Amino acid sequence: MRLQKLISLMKERGFDGALISPGTNLYYLTGLRIHEAGERLTVLVVSADGDYRLLAPSLYETVVRNFPVTFWRDGENPYDKLAWILAELHLSKGRLLIEDTMRADWLIGVIRLGPFEFHPLSSVIRELRMRKDRHEIEMMGHAAKAADRVFDEILSWDLLGMRERELALKIELAVRELSDGISFEPIVASGENGANPHHEPGNRRLRKGDMVILDYGARWKGYCSDITRTIALGRPSERLVEIYEAVREAQENAYRAVREGTKAKEVDRTARETIARAGYGEYFTHRTGHGLGLDVHEEPYIGPDGETILENGMTFTIEPGIYVSGLGGVRIEDDVVVLDGKGKRLTRAERELIRL
Amino acid sequence: MRLQKLISLMKERGFDGALISPGTNLYYLTGLRIHEAGERLTVLVVSADGDYRLLAPSLYETVVRNFPVTFWRDGENPYDKLAWILAELHLSKGRLLIEDTMRADWLIGVIRLGPFEFHPLSSVIRELRMRKDRHEIEMMGHAAKAADRVFDEILSWDLLGMRERELALKIELAVRELSDGISFEPIVASGENGANPHHEPGNRRLRKGDMVILDYGARWKGYCSDITRTIALGRPSERLVEIYEAVREAQENAYRAVREGTKAKEVDRTARETIARAGYGEYFTHRTGHGLGLDVHEEPYIGPDGETILENGMTFTIEPGIYVSGLGGVRIEDDVVVLDGKGKRLTRAERELIRL
Repeated sequence: MRLQKLISLMKERGFDGALISPGTNLYYLTGLRIHEAGERLTVLVVSADGDYRLLAPSLYETVVRNFPVTFWRDGENPYDKLAWILAELHLSKGRLLIEDTMRADWLIGVIRLGPFEFHPLSSVIRELRMRKDRHEIEMMGHAAKAADRVFDEILSWDLLGMRERELALKIELAVRELSDGISFEPIVASGENGANPHHEPGNRRLRKGDMVILDYGARWKGYCSDITRTIALGRPSERLVEIYEAVREAQENAYRAVREGTKAKEVDRTARETIARAGYGEYFTHRTGHGLGLDVHEEPYIGPDGETILENGMTFTIEPGIYVSGLGGVRIEDDVVVLDGKGKRLTRAERELIRL
Repeated sequence: MRLQKLISLMKERGFDGALISPGTNLYYLTGLRIHEAGERLTVLVVSADGDYRLLAPSLYETVVRNFPVTFWRDGENPYDKLAWILAELHLSKGRLLIEDTMRADWLIGVIRLGPFEFHPLSSVIRELRMRKDRHEIEMMGHAAKAADRVFDEILSWDLLGMRERELALKIELAVRELSDGISFEPIVASGENGANPHHEPGNRRLRKGDMVILDYGARWKGYCSDITRTIALGRPSERLVEIYEAVREAQENAYRAVREGTKAKEVDRTARETIARAGYGEYFTHRTGHGLGLDVHEEPYIGPDGETILENGMTFTIEPGIYVSGLGGVRIEDDVVVLDGKGKRLTRAERELIRL
């Protein structure tokens, strides 16, 4: 059980307890589908001794079943109840792991309950989260397949003259239709807008000669996919086509560099060297990829300083790109899992340049 | 200037400084459109002496202009730069206000920088935020008008047989068309699902005899609207129609009870008494309303313990409801501003029972 694994790791590293507010870590550990209830204190208290208890507002009474829980009602002071749970679990002082995304006002409430030393939960739980089990990989496969199918749909649409934001909305609706929803707001960056990797879809209309970057993802039972394809409308300039080929080759080489036992930064280096050889080294301005799972961005990061040694079960993106101001950009991104010692693509949509 | 007002309040209350991460408070104070950049530390440091400086990741270099700012790059330790800013602003110790929604891992990083005493920013800034100025009320008026117009559109749709989630999506798209986006995920609760005030739109199809609760809102330049209407399909039972009348009357009476100088809880009491007189007191299970502005839920709360004395410029919802398990529910909600001593509705869609 995942909670037991966390408890073992806590003990090993000398942490006395952990306070985990709603988010992907709480879902990962307990399977409970609890969203942040606004400002209402909701926290799982875990002791390195093996005990744990959830504190939750009473509106979750119908949601939380078969789990040790204490409810608090509007009008009660939830921090009194938290103090009581901490005492019961022998956690009135010590080294506590705190969910990174917990609201600061909750942590301020905890500070007042005793002399604690706080550390981010991610420093410990990352080691569990980044090694996916069979079920997790299967869910990610479903999320990836939904993204692939949406790409096929996109190719059937009449894109010429469509505004970036219209296309982004159409992609969102198509993703929703085939999955539990989008994993992030779709990016559509056309023509010269493609030069900005963080471009927000705007009113620009797609036109002949554009390269169009499409970056979107789906969610399946909490797990994310994240795909990017760049397509050509009409005949883009020769330089853009050359850029496309450089990115495609870098993506392929980086993918082939994925091996159990290889460091993440080696995969990044492979992509970076391929692009440098093509003469565009300075235009590849971000990391080659990021871990993917319940969060769209998680460990392991595939960048120049990625010291993580790749293992079977790790899932991440490989997404090199080239961005030339005033001209445009190209990015190609797949989701990859390490299986049987090698990389395996989860997203499999066409990567050769498609001209519409 | 709003930042100056906050600084005065801080001085008055004995706070030495404030750390404000991205969110509606940062936008309110500075007008800067900065979203949380994932885990990258972004914080406005404000000293009660009147000095302030933003610390932001370098990806915001093109966004932040004409504002005192220090950027940090990937690879640098942002907490070193934060320590430097704190020292420069004479804030190496003391009583600090912390943005309530700041990530806990950021606060953990701050804890290590000196002996501080932390307090939630909301305890001070609420007094500024809940008194809207002319510009803010105008923006809220636009957001409310968009919600009204969407209601008119809904009435023209063929609702019979539609699934709750389809209708929720159609409402979302209609809102997006007329505003900067939704202020929250639309709620559609039909038939017996209406008995759950927190119902999530599902696969149930709308049918004759249903009361259907529609709860949604729009955003305009950051400001929110939040409207609820309940409509009838065909001929709902006499009991549901009686319930509708009780809610409509409670909403009207509460609205009329809004006066400069009245306590929020008096408005709540008026709604509650009207519903109790109709015999449904125990079925009105939530507060009468909540403040509305840059956040969908903010001060002042209109509940039985609402001690806030209403003033001109305050904006909030009035949304009594009756929820009968197994039967269904009715809620009617308007956005209200206190102007010239009295309540004025911002949302004005039809409140008499509409039968489709």
